[in-house]
Amino acid sequence: MDVLVNAAVSADGKLSSRRREQIAISGEADFARVDRLRAEVDGIVVGVGTVLADDPSLIRHDEAHRRKRRGPNAPPPVRIVADSRCRTPTGADVLAGGPTTYLLTSEAAPPERREALRDVGAETVVAGDERVDLGEAFGRLEDDGIERLLVEGGGELIFSLFEAGLVDELTVFIGNMIIGGRDAPTLADGEGFVSAFPELELAGVEQLDSGVVLEWTVR
Amino acid sequence: MDVLVNAAVSADGKLSSRRREQIAISGEADFARVDRLRAEVDGIVVGVGTVLADDPSLIRHDEAHRRKRRGPNAPPPVRIVADSRCRTPTGADVLAGGPTTYLLTSEAAPPERREALRDVGAETVVAGDERVDLGEAFGRLEDDGIERLLVEGGGELIFSLFEAGLVDELTVFIGNMIIGGRDAPTLADGEGFVSAFPELELAGVEQLDSGVVLEWTVR
Repeated sequence: MDVLVNAAVSADGKLSSRRREQIAISGEADFARVDRLRAEVDGIVVGVGTVLADDPSLIRHDEAHRRKRRGPNAPPPVRIVADSRCRTPTGADVLAGGPTTYLLTSEAAPPERREALRDVGAETVVAGDERVDLGEAFGRLEDDGIERLLVEGGGELIFSLFEAGLVDELTVFIGNMIIGGRDAPTLADGEGFVSAFPELELAGVEQLDSGVVLEWTVR
Repeated sequence: MDVLVNAAVSADGKLSSRRREQIAISGEADFARVDRLRAEVDGIVVGVGTVLADDPSLIRHDEAHRRKRRGPNAPPPVRIVADSRCRTPTGADVLAGGPTTYLLTSEAAPPERREALRDVGAETVVAGDERVDLGEAFGRLEDDGIERLLVEGGGELIFSLFEAGLVDELTVFIGNMIIGGRDAPTLADGEGFVSAFPELELAGVEQLDSGVVLEWTVR
């Protein structure tokens, strides 16, 4: 499986302010770039923190690009939420209409929450005891033919993926603003590394909108 | 006065790990770039957190570059610590040998600490009640002929400078590693902005070592 992480951060590395409100960090050219990325993958992944903060539908993508790259009958990317405790609200936009939504969850999720989410159409994948085992869950997705994933955040999920050694590529739009804040979410939060830091290789640098896109591959 | 902020961060925007140990984020080419930057300014500024974590001497700079750019008799840059409570140890390397060291402090600093630091040669500048008033303190430095400052961190000081509207330029080396950690220091920590985010303009993009240097000017 190929896992690409994409995010937009401020010049000081923040995904949002300490209030976790959505901030327009990039612009139209970067939105179009992300819509093309989405069209090239089998599934779009976010963490439950992003669902709770932003309520994204994860439906929008560049359909013409999808048809061109993957053929006229290529299905739209499925939607995937990493949600160890099944905290996704049953009314979340990520569950409404459109393609299948997978919820990657753990044994620690309350059974009634899991059932409620299944009742509104979510495909639940249970892997791991206290927290979702992302490697195992991604393996299960692969069994369903999902080969290429785009991860869009947040910082807790992105850190967990680096910790599990599951990230192949990272693209970051760096925008022309300072957000600041020791409690503001960053590209990779979690506990953090103190040694054996994951190493990247710079694969591309592109000026876009009022910022820069850096493309990294993971060594 | 001109204030240039320079820092090296990981691809996920961290200055260091949650343990605040120094991490080699950049390489020789970036060190040489910073040595040239230091040679072009009248003073090098750090926050007391950086003194306590890294004990830098702030002496190294590119002397040949200084002579070429500023003439044969240009003095080396002075050293400046923003230290509201005079927590700098009297044995800190930033106070040893070399050029003058200014301590920018506040009325809240214990008088005996202020005196102890004066006794080991520090020039104390008292401005502000609870925390050092950076605008006033920088004005006092300007009275001493200090016109151009290079700020090297940490994230608390850098945020305070953006908050006070004192930053003119920002250069950031972005290195090829992930550090992660919701408690790891970032380029701009502090309380953070929630609106009226400082806006930057991209002035340069350069690949260096295994990373990228972004040059921003503050609008």
